[in-house]
Amino acid sequence: MNKAIIVAEPGLQSLTITREFDASRELLFRAFTDPDLLVQWLGPRRLSMTIDRLEVRDGGMWRYRHREADGVEFAFHGVFHGAPSVDGIVQTFEYEGWPGRVSLEALTFEERDGKTTVRQNAVYQSVADRDAMIESGMETGVNEGFEKLDELIARLAGGQ
Amino acid sequence: MNKAIIVAEPGLQSLTITREFDASRELLFRAFTDPDLLVQWLGPRRLSMTIDRLEVRDGGMWRYRHREADGVEFAFHGVFHGAPSVDGIVQTFEYEGWPGRVSLEALTFEERDGKTTVRQNAVYQSVADRDAMIESGMETGVNEGFEKLDELIARLAGGQ
Repeated sequence: MNKAIIVAEPGLQSLTITREFDASRELLFRAFTDPDLLVQWLGPRRLSMTIDRLEVRDGGMWRYRHREADGVEFAFHGVFHGAPSVDGIVQTFEYEGWPGRVSLEALTFEERDGKTTVRQNAVYQSVADRDAMIESGMETGVNEGFEKLDELIARLAGGQ
Repeated sequence: MNKAIIVAEPGLQSLTITREFDASRELLFRAFTDPDLLVQWLGPRRLSMTIDRLEVRDGGMWRYRHREADGVEFAFHGVFHGAPSVDGIVQTFEYEGWPGRVSLEALTFEERDGKTTVRQNAVYQSVADRDAMIESGMETGVNEGFEKLDELIARLAGGQ
């Protein structure tokens, strides 16, 4: 099983997530920015997802909610810095249960021999903020989401 | 002379700038968000400033240019995360001469006994990015700008 590599060096305020997918960078960019695709894969398996906004443009805002089976919701929002493209996406990120603790994410899509490596750099306002994000169970959510993205890619390939 | 305190701990990706002003937080918020005021103080004394955009709202974009006497320009842009208010401003920041090196800034305005402390936390995508920003002459620009802001505050007080 292809797992995400999450690197969080001690004492730094950032972390990087790296994961390879069996798809072109154009398809991956779509999977990250088309709400009909994004809703199918982002986040842990036990949560259902609702996308309230996904304005894929410079200054565009996004907001989504994850919901537990018992109805408890976790909402997130942010804004795009620069126009998102296959060359990369830069966005702010805030968990609404933790207001004011904003982070900055930069994603790139690097294609080679038909496979694409997604690299995400996230930088937090303090080391403590970053460490709290890691301890929130981020790794499980990231990996389950990326497995669902593998499945989505396979479905899209099957339909072609 | 009241100088900004700039703290950049070794090995971290962030820096903080702290400076006290003889004004209310409402006046300081205006000085940071009203283009007619901002244009009078931001940046080093030798540069003239043009504000192209300053959309003070959630997702609003801003862009300004500093110009040397010989016409050479330095442009900057970013986007607001959340609605700017006297409680704080969160924004992205990018120097257009250094594309892709985006940072995240959080400003707060803390008033006490009629004076207000402005605190700015800026976090960069790497330690090298932060150090390069410091080495670009940031301290001079910050302090000259804040001295011009002292002068603007005095002019506004005199005009009341």
